[in-house]
Amino acid sequence: MSSSAANISIPPQGSREKAKELVLALQNEICSGLEQIDGKGHFEEESWERPEGGGGRSRVMREGKIFEQGGVNFSEVHGKELPPSIVNQRPEAKGHPWFATGTSMVLHPRSPYLPTVHLNYRYFEAGPVWWFGGGADLTPYYPYLNDAKHFHKVHQEACDSIHPSLHRVFKPWCDEYFFLKHRQETRGIGGIFYDYQDGSGNLYKGQDKKGLAHKISNDIGPCNLSWEDLFSLAQSCGKAFLPAYLPIIEKRKNQTYQDRERNFQLYRRGRYVEFNLVWDRGTIFGLQTNGRTESILMSLPPLARWEYGYQAPSNSREALLTQIFTKPQNWLTDKSLEEKCFAYQAVD
Amino acid sequence: MSSSAANISIPPQGSREKAKELVLALQNEICSGLEQIDGKGHFEEESWERPEGGGGRSRVMREGKIFEQGGVNFSEVHGKELPPSIVNQRPEAKGHPWFATGTSMVLHPRSPYLPTVHLNYRYFEAGPVWWFGGGADLTPYYPYLNDAKHFHKVHQEACDSIHPSLHRVFKPWCDEYFFLKHRQETRGIGGIFYDYQDGSGNLYKGQDKKGLAHKISNDIGPCNLSWEDLFSLAQSCGKAFLPAYLPIIEKRKNQTYQDRERNFQLYRRGRYVEFNLVWDRGTIFGLQTNGRTESILMSLPPLARWEYGYQAPSNSREALLTQIFTKPQNWLTDKSLEEKCFAYQAVD
Repeated sequence: MSSSAANISIPPQGSREKAKELVLALQNEICSGLEQIDGKGHFEEESWERPEGGGGRSRVMREGKIFEQGGVNFSEVHGKELPPSIVNQRPEAKGHPWFATGTSMVLHPRSPYLPTVHLNYRYFEAGPVWWFGGGADLTPYYPYLNDAKHFHKVHQEACDSIHPSLHRVFKPWCDEYFFLKHRQETRGIGGIFYDYQDGSGNLYKGQDKKGLAHKISNDIGPCNLSWEDLFSLAQSCGKAFLPAYLPIIEKRKNQTYQDRERNFQLYRRGRYVEFNLVWDRGTIFGLQTNGRTESILMSLPPLARWEYGYQAPSNSREALLTQIFTKPQNWLTDKSLEEKCFAYQAVD
Repeated sequence: MSSSAANISIPPQGSREKAKELVLALQNEICSGLEQIDGKGHFEEESWERPEGGGGRSRVMREGKIFEQGGVNFSEVHGKELPPSIVNQRPEAKGHPWFATGTSMVLHPRSPYLPTVHLNYRYFEAGPVWWFGGGADLTPYYPYLNDAKHFHKVHQEACDSIHPSLHRVFKPWCDEYFFLKHRQETRGIGGIFYDYQDGSGNLYKGQDKKGLAHKISNDIGPCNLSWEDLFSLAQSCGKAFLPAYLPIIEKRKNQTYQDRERNFQLYRRGRYVEFNLVWDRGTIFGLQTNGRTESILMSLPPLARWEYGYQAPSNSREALLTQIFTKPQNWLTDKSLEEKCFAYQAVD
């Protein structure tokens, strides 16, 4: 069921400022938490203006103790008309001036035992319509079931605090969005992802009408949320990031590794590049429409490698990652995962 | 001016076999020449079948003395109907079974002084239409004017041996095709590129109606070539590859380099990845339509890096590469290039 502008409430006064302050505060909070755990690296800030309207603030950490490279972007941009790729999804926005603000982040830790992580929360207004989107997802290089469970549990709780139906849709939506079709692999172990949330109609507003997220969303039926609910959702999920990620870093930051693990990490980082450049709508859209290239490509890893025909050794942790941790899983409820991971010391 | 099937001659008897033998012989000749100059690395061969019809032969060299990684593919495939991306360009092919054969190659040398190189020659038949496509282009990491001149000169001569107008169109077509719009850079110093050559109408049959290749082609006007002419063109250009590339390798293979040069090479290899995954029609088409992923991505470098906001030091060879060697240039005729390169010891 698609929503129409008639079903969408009018945003509260000062909505743009409120959304902007939310994502700015989030950028600050996250950067501060990351610098603290890294202990050595600092974010360098660069402000930029967009010729067509608006601007942003990019923060990059390089050669930290824990983080090899990472970036946290903030942007607040506006324009006369949204591009077709978005208007196709939100036809009511067509022909109207638009406003968008958001924060996005990708962190590439140095150690292969520390997962890469991505976060993005954003808010749009265009004529009669507005919507929130966002999410966070984790990409481990070595499999640990408890890390996956923890990351999902914290995000589930953040969603549940707003509405009990959200996580059931946003979890599979994440698996479906961060999917490399040419590899038949998910990018990582997922998390949550949502888009075009305007408080009207069904929760799932993605393009894949055959996926699980769409099916569950249809089963749930209309889920009406106020602007304030969706604002709180972004706030709640955004605030969940540090407690979802930092305990994993804390737990594994002192694990030592050898060339084998580093090489596998660099190989898997190649998949991260493949997803971002081939499939990520945001990246492709940005690059093809004169976005700020350096900020868009901040998500790419500092070092990555490709190897023709690589196959993980059978019965290895690398094979476990490929077989289990790059496929959609019910991390929080599927009891069979324990057994599969146990033999590889990949539970904790 | 677009061609119609009525203007296209009927291919000679045994055309598919002839084209297949041409590209197979080319694959053999090139692999043999590359193994010889490498002295250590050997191509490992893997044959594969395509479930929808046909198959191929992939050859990969890893950890050679000169070549860090490289692949030379051969394929001969057929199907019931060409995908929309090709039918849009060749409407006469719509609804017809098709046949395609070709060879493609990318070599990533270890030394930053040795350029990466790409080659591809292919032949299609679909109902009433047939066409040849192909080319070769060079991507240096450190600038040497004479290398660029040599590569272009050998390919110009190969084109001229068939028809005096070809190189005037295929050279700018290459610059326009291998272009990273989001960086406003060419992938390298170019070479030649052509597609949809069916012997009818104007030489340029690309999508960019504003480019130089289109303009020159229009100025030249119709250029009628027989199937045999275009077969000879692929043969002539294919055979030009080794004499265009090997002398550069021979000349520079013993130049020593330090971390600075290696790091710049890895950084620039990131651009190679960006082009292939974001802009290359063949790669994107292959990945999005169930092609053989490992063969398609054989073009990616064994190691690449990204660095946010990198700027080449001013007045450095790295800056010269970025300013001159990633912009379209008239390598063979522009006398001002000598002066620009001389100060950086970048002529020879």
